[in-house]
Amino acid sequence: MKVRLMSHTPDPERAVALAARLCYSPVGVDELEEQMSREEMARLIRNVVRMGHHSTLEHAAFEFAVEGVSRTLTHQLVRHRLASYSQQSQRYVTQSGFNHVVPPTVRREPAAKAVFDEAMARAGAAYDELTRLGVPKEDARYVLPNATGTKIVISMNARALLHFFELRCCTRAQWEIRTLAYRMLKEVKEAAPILFEKAGPPCTSLGFCREGRMSCGRIKRLKRERLDFVVAPVTGRGGGSKGKE
Amino acid sequence: MKVRLMSHTPDPERAVALAARLCYSPVGVDELEEQMSREEMARLIRNVVRMGHHSTLEHAAFEFAVEGVSRTLTHQLVRHRLASYSQQSQRYVTQSGFNHVVPPTVRREPAAKAVFDEAMARAGAAYDELTRLGVPKEDARYVLPNATGTKIVISMNARALLHFFELRCCTRAQWEIRTLAYRMLKEVKEAAPILFEKAGPPCTSLGFCREGRMSCGRIKRLKRERLDFVVAPVTGRGGGSKGKE
Amino acid sequence: MKVRLMSHTPDPERAVALAARLCYSPVGVDELEEQMSREEMARLIRNVVRMGHHSTLEHAAFEFAVEGVSRTLTHQLVRHRLASYSQQSQRYVTQSGFNHVVPPTVRREPAAKAVFDEAMARAGAAYDELTRLGVPKEDARYVLPNATGTKIVISMNARALLHFFELRCCTRAQWEIRTLAYRMLKEVKEAAPILFEKAGPPCTSLGFCREGRMSCGRIKRLKRERLDFVVAPVTGRGGGSKGKE
Amino acid sequence: MKVRLMSHTPDPERAVALAARLCYSPVGVDELEEQMSREEMARLIRNVVRMGHHSTLEHAAFEFAVEGVSRTLTHQLVRHRLASYSQQSQRYVTQSGFNHVVPPTVRREPAAKAVFDEAMARAGAAYDELTRLGVPKEDARYVLPNATGTKIVISMNARALLHFFELRCCTRAQWEIRTLAYRMLKEVKEAAPILFEKAGPPCTSLGFCREGRMSCGRIKRLKRERLDFVVAPVTGRGGGSKGKE
Repeated sequence: MKVRLMSHTPDPERAVALAARLCYSPVGVDELEEQMSREEMARLIRNVVRMGHHSTLEHAAFEFAVEGVSRTLTHQLVRHRLASYSQQSQRYVTQSGFNHVVPPTVRREPAAKAVFDEAMARAGAAYDELTRLGVPKEDARYVLPNATGTKIVISMNARALLHFFELRCCTRAQWEIRTLAYRMLKEVKEAAPILFEKAGPPCTSLGFCREGRMSCGRIKRLKRERLDFVVAPVTGRGGGSKGKE
Repeated sequence: MKVRLMSHTPDPERAVALAARLCYSPVGVDELEEQMSREEMARLIRNVVRMGHHSTLEHAAFEFAVEGVSRTLTHQLVRHRLASYSQQSQRYVTQSGFNHVVPPTVRREPAAKAVFDEAMARAGAAYDELTRLGVPKEDARYVLPNATGTKIVISMNARALLHFFELRCCTRAQWEIRTLAYRMLKEVKEAAPILFEKAGPPCTSLGFCREGRMSCGRIKRLKRERLDFVVAPVTGRGGGSKGKE
Repeated sequence: MKVRLMSHTPDPERAVALAARLCYSPVGVDELEEQMSREEMARLIRNVVRMGHHSTLEHAAFEFAVEGVSRTLTHQLVRHRLASYSQQSQRYVTQSGFNHVVPPTVRREPAAKAVFDEAMARAGAAYDELTRLGVPKEDARYVLPNATGTKIVISMNARALLHFFELRCCTRAQWEIRTLAYRMLKEVKEAAPILFEKAGPPCTSLGFCREGRMSCGRIKRLKRERLDFVVAPVTGRGGGSKGKE
Repeated sequence: MKVRLMSHTPDPERAVALAARLCYSPVGVDELEEQMSREEMARLIRNVVRMGHHSTLEHAAFEFAVEGVSRTLTHQLVRHRLASYSQQSQRYVTQSGFNHVVPPTVRREPAAKAVFDEAMARAGAAYDELTRLGVPKEDARYVLPNATGTKIVISMNARALLHFFELRCCTRAQWEIRTLAYRMLKEVKEAAPILFEKAGPPCTSLGFCREGRMSCGRIKRLKRERLDFVVAPVTGRGGGSKGKE
């Protein structure tokens, strides 16, 4: 998998902070720009993210080029509708000699790997045979597997990315799109470290988990630590807990 | 392919007409409802569609259940972002003994059909073997072909549908999603005949084509007929053409 | 304020439950419909709402007609982008003799009420005078106040509504749009009681508050009660708390 | 009115061209970047815009800061839902001594101007009086006129902008938002001259008008010129028109 941050709003955190400030300020944009220090910007952004006032985050846009991911992944990915996609077409680009993605559960089991490799080879041979028989590319591709590699350009703004990371960095997401999500997160953290400092699954970003009995349990460990902390005074000096949270 | 209109806004054309009327009327909704005849409604809806004032069309919602379509189709379908989808999961539902879709170009060519059938059988066998070896369903499915059948529930409002029909009823769309589009169009035409009376590709709905040299040529035939009509008086009785269009 | 649920997806909870079931079921829609009891439906919907798997909620659409609200309210309202609006036009509908909305803080203070009434009367007189002088309606309306009454048709699906209620039923929302939100909530609760049984501000629907020091404090009271419950066993019989949450 | 292009995707035309090329190319993004000349980029972008394959245009994002526009304008503006907004709040920012916008039809008519100025002064006095009486800002603003000046940050991608220009550069749009649209168009034409070279109302960008009898007539003049051109050969040397369009 190759993930590259192609471009983004120049100084994305400044864009967000200025927009956030404009909402609550009597002065104009020019003055705002002059007045705002980096510290002020950081404080504003953290507030906006923490309080869930996410509309200002939309002014920061990010564009990625992704290669070497499967069509399994992209079919999941493009369900995220608050984003823009340009994907390599199987209708117009020949898939002869196509690359493919091998799941880790297959890779680590030699018997499974042999079955998988054979399946890829046979699908490729069928595709070539069909095109040789005059079947158009757009129809020959019906024999291609979900594992087939593809390329896609993705644009999302910071708000959509935070939501994407909540869903797809979660252990409940499939490994391939989770890998993509973490790779994208790594890229945007470099471009906008404060904006994305708490980004990740809800257990990380929000401190809770809605998966119920499907939960991976990470939140329970986090909560238990936090609960111990809260509960401590009660079992301690006898002083009343104020439950300050 | 099985396409069923599961439910829709009751009296979708009344919903659209009332909303359209409210924008330009001093009276309230209750009075509007009493006053508006079926003829008035029809006139209003035709105006709204023709003039492209499409926001009022969004008040009419339609929900479809679709079965027996391929993942090739659904990967294209879900790129339409102004819609809602619920699709059968290949992560959680076993695909053993999966159905598949055969393209017409394959079906009518016995040699191609043989290659295709063999490819489907082998992909199915590989899937079963992988799951038998302990590979989880979500990973075993990487060997499944694009042809694999799937089920999906689709909700779109009338505005999104008109746009969907423009793109997907066009001969430039792939045959499978074009078939779906025409089947959906047939369903909504029964529920809202005036709303969708001109729905279809842009050559039908708008009288133009933007495909340039990729065009199927249908628009040229339509235009030639229309041009002949416009041009006729000039070469005819000598009476001046008023260029009424 | 007059709020009327004009129409909605017939049996909205069935629409949601069927879509949710389809995702995880090998059988088709027809069989699903036959098999599913009301109890099963209720269980499914509660799961979907609780776990935040909200995409299936989009298949239930609701349309409201709202009258007697101010342009202050509608300017806030139409910021919700996952919705459809048709609003009475001030460009085309005369505003002579316009209705207006009086805030409670003004109504209960006679001195303020006098100032307010005078302001409304003067704005109305200026509007009439401008149109008499030949200024078009669309420009004369520049003197009309935010308080001016308007009519609007709103369509939202159940997912968008849940989000709308979280933001606008909160005490931090302005009183007028909060009133609208609670009126809409009352309407949809009758049409889909299970879908909306926990709907409301985040303290109600999710059990948390992100407003920080701007919080109204309601969540603290709720949390304290819940914390007492959780903490109780620790200070109680000595039996270990399992922290079941 | 002050309109400033705050920031945009660096090299927006390259972003669009690369995405467009990826869809139809077997090679990866790195190679594409090396290979593509400015001429190739220009050709690609013109194709994409002309053929209406607008999804690739979404990768180019633009952010504007706008000041000195009225709330009349912003209430219209924020109806465009495929965009992001951050607007100065009348709930939290005092409007004492507020600026306002004067429509040209008022400005050029002294009697109207006098009525208008008086109305602004009275609304301002009422606002101040209400706040002095203890009415909160969010309620005192109910007396403020539509003309009240506001500030707003707008983000739109190139696709949304093309659509915005089609609706709001049209003579049927109100003068204030039309002025904003042309000012924004001027800004983006400097940043991306090829992308926006045909941007404007549909008569300019597409060569047609859907306004029917509400049309300003510009399209008729354009069409008549074009029709004369097409018709000429028929009445001319007798050479057959090929109707190449």
